[in-house]
Amino acid sequence: MTTIHRVHNFAAGPAVLPVPVLEQIQRDLIALPGVGMSILEISHRSKTFESILAQAEADIRALAAIPPNYHVLFLQGGASTQFSMVPMNLLAAGATADYIDTGSWADKAIKEARKVGTVNIVVSTKADNYARVPAQAELKVTKGAAYVHFTSNNTIEGTAYRQLPDVGDAPLVNDSSSDMFSRPIDVSRHALIYAGAQKNMGPAGVTVVIIRDDMLPRSVEKQSSLPTMLNYAVHAENKSLYNTPPAFAVYALGLVMKWLRDLGGLAAIGAVNERKAAKLYAEIDRTGFYRGTAQKGSRSLMNVTFRLATEDLENRFIKDSTAAGLDGLKGHRAVGGMRASVYNAFPENGVDALVSFMQEFERKHG
Amino acid sequence: MTTIHRVHNFAAGPAVLPVPVLEQIQRDLIALPGVGMSILEISHRSKTFESILAQAEADIRALAAIPPNYHVLFLQGGASTQFSMVPMNLLAAGATADYIDTGSWADKAIKEARKVGTVNIVVSTKADNYARVPAQAELKVTKGAAYVHFTSNNTIEGTAYRQLPDVGDAPLVNDSSSDMFSRPIDVSRHALIYAGAQKNMGPAGVTVVIIRDDMLPRSVEKQSSLPTMLNYAVHAENKSLYNTPPAFAVYALGLVMKWLRDLGGLAAIGAVNERKAAKLYAEIDRTGFYRGTAQKGSRSLMNVTFRLATEDLENRFIKDSTAAGLDGLKGHRAVGGMRASVYNAFPENGVDALVSFMQEFERKHG
Repeated sequence: MTTIHRVHNFAAGPAVLPVPVLEQIQRDLIALPGVGMSILEISHRSKTFESILAQAEADIRALAAIPPNYHVLFLQGGASTQFSMVPMNLLAAGATADYIDTGSWADKAIKEARKVGTVNIVVSTKADNYARVPAQAELKVTKGAAYVHFTSNNTIEGTAYRQLPDVGDAPLVNDSSSDMFSRPIDVSRHALIYAGAQKNMGPAGVTVVIIRDDMLPRSVEKQSSLPTMLNYAVHAENKSLYNTPPAFAVYALGLVMKWLRDLGGLAAIGAVNERKAAKLYAEIDRTGFYRGTAQKGSRSLMNVTFRLATEDLENRFIKDSTAAGLDGLKGHRAVGGMRASVYNAFPENGVDALVSFMQEFERKHG
Repeated sequence: MTTIHRVHNFAAGPAVLPVPVLEQIQRDLIALPGVGMSILEISHRSKTFESILAQAEADIRALAAIPPNYHVLFLQGGASTQFSMVPMNLLAAGATADYIDTGSWADKAIKEARKVGTVNIVVSTKADNYARVPAQAELKVTKGAAYVHFTSNNTIEGTAYRQLPDVGDAPLVNDSSSDMFSRPIDVSRHALIYAGAQKNMGPAGVTVVIIRDDMLPRSVEKQSSLPTMLNYAVHAENKSLYNTPPAFAVYALGLVMKWLRDLGGLAAIGAVNERKAAKLYAEIDRTGFYRGTAQKGSRSLMNVTFRLATEDLENRFIKDSTAAGLDGLKGHRAVGGMRASVYNAFPENGVDALVSFMQEFERKHG
């Protein structure tokens, strides 16, 4: 395997996966050991697949110490589908859903919720170019809110919460698509957490939803109008096997979860991620040649965004870094500049390579 | 590769894939040639993935000679999500959707449509245990129907249409999940065709939708209430890249489409499928020891369902055939007995093996 040329993949997602996971997938691709058929061909009603699904769930539960009154669901459609499912299931007629607006994805979630019912934007950091997440003092939760929705890591803007927002008794809903399982998470403070897998958890094609069981009666109440495939209670009752699940993506996600456990779990990977991000931010702050776009207290450990003095210089940076085998550093067009996405599986030596490249680039152009 | 033990996989879906496709996936799993990263890691906004998606679409278009006024979409959520998307997009308030009820899946589609609007069941073969599809004379399409929905192959009951139903000027919507691209299809007679990929087209996790462009204004009209992820017009406008697509499943499906083209296309595979099914039905009809459950004019080429005189004998058949390396022959509980699913990638020597096993079983127990 080691002779295969691989670049450093800084893409924002789908993103780099652990090489040992890729090697295991490759090894067993033609036929799972002792099964005689590929994971790509296997019936989702087979004992083999049921055990793959159960193991993935068990590993997720163990990693985040998920309390027994939460369901772990494997769905399809990504966070974009959750933008609709959350209000369609949890927001009853006459109730209000609170949203915290911290970026492009939060804004999309808000737009979908408005199709369903009454939305209150509790606080928005748009006026600050989304360069920060709000302080606790800025949160004025609606009394009796159906839920409060926030985005724990803002992929495009490179910002993140370091502590969960305190919303009192209101159910907290977390779009954790770009930092799920990148550090310890207190599931018990949430009513619902969702994440497309394709950043820290696995390949694109599966969405993980962790939902507290007291939310499910809301879905049951709406079942006469709610599409069955968008009904959390149906998926919980059927243990993610109401219809054919994205079997391969669940399998690959399970291997990544096992890799995470073998590494030492969320505390261990969290320490690695802190270290990787710290190296990049230290380089960004070193001389002023680079400029971080997120405010310091809101900096993401996953998506490190930075700019240079001119767009010409930024274009040169992208071009030269790509040529040097550092792929995917172009920032989202909404922010411009550069973005280094350094998810769980992104190797520390890739961060070191980027830091060296940044220093060399500054020597040439500083 | 040839030393790896593989069984004959008669599962109804997810189902067997072509071995050369599995081998190519395996070979390139760690890094796509010249790209330096795995298909599981690659950004959906990259040129590499855009070209994979475009090639899959081009091959689909070529295989079925799809006219230019149709869009080919790669979505998630399987046929079960289409059961909702079809009425949510195409059925306006006050209009009526016609449904042809030929089995368990058609019935599920009907239940979802009723959540959206007025449904008329044009004809049902439930009284015949769904052992046949209706004759043309039984179809009385509602004047001005929003569309007519039918299921071209009924996976559970083992029945299929040999000719498309004639619905006059009404838009024809086809759930072709279990026979898509198993034989030539006249796309121009449809307004919409959908299929989960996991039978004839690829692994689970991607749904192919072929939609005529005159249907899209209906989605646009409903866009203020329709979830964006369930809006056909959004996916058509964004060429299936509105959000992160199930990249690996699209890639694998593309390889299967290329395999199909190399085989000679839909006419060629249709001839193979006719021959495979004919061998099985000939054996079923040979002595009366076996009994086909579908009426002869409605027999499916994909799912061959048959029974024995007693359930004890059927259980023995399942047990012994599994031990003989013929996997997945247990019929769906709604029909009982046996079901041999022999999709495109199911090898003809596997059919021969089953016929031999059936003859041997009859000698022992007849």
